[in-house]
Amino acid sequence: MPISTSIAAMMQNSSFIRKMFEEGSKLKMLHGVDAVCDFSIGNPDMTPPQEFQAALMEEAGRQEPRIHGYMPNAGYPYVRKNVADFASSEQGVELTAQNLLMTCGAGGALNVALRAIVNPGDEVLASAPCFVEYGFYCGNYGAELKLVPSTDTFDLNPKVFAEAVTEKTAAVIINSPHNPTGRIYPSETLAELAEVLDEASRRIGRRIYLLSDEPYRKIAYDGIEVPSVMAVYPHSLVATSYSKDLSVPGERIGYLAVSPGADDAEQLIGALTLCNRILGYVNAPGLMQRTVARLQGVSVDVGVYQAKRDKLRAILDDAGFEYAEPQGTFYFWVKSPVDDELAVVDALKKELILTVPGRGFSGPGWFRISYCVDDAVIERSAEGFKTVRKQFPSQPNPPLERT
Amino acid sequence: MPISTSIAAMMQNSSFIRKMFEEGSKLKMLHGVDAVCDFSIGNPDMTPPQEFQAALMEEAGRQEPRIHGYMPNAGYPYVRKNVADFASSEQGVELTAQNLLMTCGAGGALNVALRAIVNPGDEVLASAPCFVEYGFYCGNYGAELKLVPSTDTFDLNPKVFAEAVTEKTAAVIINSPHNPTGRIYPSETLAELAEVLDEASRRIGRRIYLLSDEPYRKIAYDGIEVPSVMAVYPHSLVATSYSKDLSVPGERIGYLAVSPGADDAEQLIGALTLCNRILGYVNAPGLMQRTVARLQGVSVDVGVYQAKRDKLRAILDDAGFEYAEPQGTFYFWVKSPVDDELAVVDALKKELILTVPGRGFSGPGWFRISYCVDDAVIERSAEGFKTVRKQFPSQPNPPLERT
Repeated sequence: MPISTSIAAMMQNSSFIRKMFEEGSKLKMLHGVDAVCDFSIGNPDMTPPQEFQAALMEEAGRQEPRIHGYMPNAGYPYVRKNVADFASSEQGVELTAQNLLMTCGAGGALNVALRAIVNPGDEVLASAPCFVEYGFYCGNYGAELKLVPSTDTFDLNPKVFAEAVTEKTAAVIINSPHNPTGRIYPSETLAELAEVLDEASRRIGRRIYLLSDEPYRKIAYDGIEVPSVMAVYPHSLVATSYSKDLSVPGERIGYLAVSPGADDAEQLIGALTLCNRILGYVNAPGLMQRTVARLQGVSVDVGVYQAKRDKLRAILDDAGFEYAEPQGTFYFWVKSPVDDELAVVDALKKELILTVPGRGFSGPGWFRISYCVDDAVIERSAEGFKTVRKQFPSQPNPPLERT
Repeated sequence: MPISTSIAAMMQNSSFIRKMFEEGSKLKMLHGVDAVCDFSIGNPDMTPPQEFQAALMEEAGRQEPRIHGYMPNAGYPYVRKNVADFASSEQGVELTAQNLLMTCGAGGALNVALRAIVNPGDEVLASAPCFVEYGFYCGNYGAELKLVPSTDTFDLNPKVFAEAVTEKTAAVIINSPHNPTGRIYPSETLAELAEVLDEASRRIGRRIYLLSDEPYRKIAYDGIEVPSVMAVYPHSLVATSYSKDLSVPGERIGYLAVSPGADDAEQLIGALTLCNRILGYVNAPGLMQRTVARLQGVSVDVGVYQAKRDKLRAILDDAGFEYAEPQGTFYFWVKSPVDDELAVVDALKKELILTVPGRGFSGPGWFRISYCVDDAVIERSAEGFKTVRKQFPSQPNPPLERT
């Protein structure tokens, strides 16, 4: 075997998803890009806000010596300060520059956090369904992701977390607003989880850190405020990025913040900074650090995404699909009318509609629609959704209970 | 222990180097930045070439939809093609876009390569002295870096590599032009190493990959051409970055190329692309990909570095220091007049000259001078070097044999 055993296994498993994407590309070649409704990935179509463009041009124009040079591994001190000031207002706790480091997006932040926290053989808990990459991130450092089921309405279930903790539990990863379900965890649930983790940490004699993955924080609808984990559990780390709210996912810029009240916070920050270096990131891309430092609080118009949600909701309602109530992100989590969601995803493909089967998120029986696409694509999909829904009439859904 | 055992151990060990940097900062505070000759790190002071500035401004000005969006994990196809075309001319083998992926600098490229290749418990070989991070990179994925000594003139020693190979050997890392010694490995040595690795791979029944870390390829002096590893060993991967030759180390842009003749090349590229994703890089920063695509073959004026080398060489000669013959990079590898190089590094610090002790590179008895600094800094250091050399007269060096 010329390549790592774990990587070879992943390639075997991911070939299914790769096949899907290949088929999608084939459809676009056959029928033209404009004929296909591609709801498969979360690559925002909105252009970045004008403030981003202005800040980028100004920062790109700077020619001082070493302006593109190395800075401290944690990022430019002034950037960290600007980001910390705004993050404090979001998290409701006092964060300073020393509490956070700039990272290559949230994916980079999560890898840095896991490298710093876990030992090989450790376990990390998350609520299913979830972002498929969490398992890979844990596996990079010899840890295992253990999934626990969410509630019927896709809320966290603190009780099952309590039962799942073992002596090997190093951390819990949560994600809100949530990919793929679009759910936002209420503060009561977070408070309950905090209590569970406090109790469990005492029980196993080891501090269980809470990793909160929040790249969709700013994409919340209907006036919902995304509650803060730091406010309820001081041993929290927040990983996030500007990918979604500034529409710049290819630029790889985000940050990782440690709650000032975390056990061993200072040592932890030192470890995270070291890991940012030795994982080969070295530092988050400099020009983007300097650009986002000027854009704290700026984001794309979330009303545009909310309007897209409403448009798609009307189409799904009309077709007769059930779904999780979408409170944020730009994903719809739709119940397959039959147990095997692959059959439905395949039928949609025949209508030139690309979606992702729920098993890709450890959520079989459901599928995900990513609607960060042009309105015309959403509108064009109406007939196809209707047609497919009619093809699967045999198992009418009981109405999904919504919170 | 709230943090990973391996990370905690590293923090313990690296506190020595951190202390050094802290002392350096203290000196600058006390005496003023301009009074201190900081030769400690490789953060180029040259501004990027004007072509970089022009390309960056043009690419930053683009506002097409998804211009800052995700692209394939391996990078934009056209960028990979441009880079492959130029890399073919450097490496003397035919590389296509399919043979390489864009990465977050050479550090990112090496992490991606190691994640894809090694299993926990594997060994990776390198020649000492070497860049300290190699060991950390291997450790990230449970592999161990085993160092073998270089020759007296800091060339590779293929014979000791042959002896060091075990069944656990997954790869060999080499670096030319070499940090910290400034040496460039001649093609005969590379050919000899290739033969050794071929023989050893057959012996252990496993293909040993050669990872060539080449961020200083363009910084070679006196007309020396840096020989290609791909030309002599088809199972080679080249990791590199634009950090040094475009003076943009903070922007994190580079690439990883796989020799088209490598065993299982296609599977390997697939694995590397997957690893680029799951290590959280996702993709190399998009704007920088597009910028460097337009700058193939462009670099800072290497003559400027060569002139700095000559200036510093005259100072070291005048003071009576011995050193490895510097053929490239912007480092001088200087022999300490006494076995304990820390004493000399400390004495230099008293003269406000900051250097790095060789033990930081597994090369005790030597120290490194990084001369990617202003000419005035080099000139100002002359008296200090003389003074310190006089303080250590007791162990006159036998003249170092040079190749």
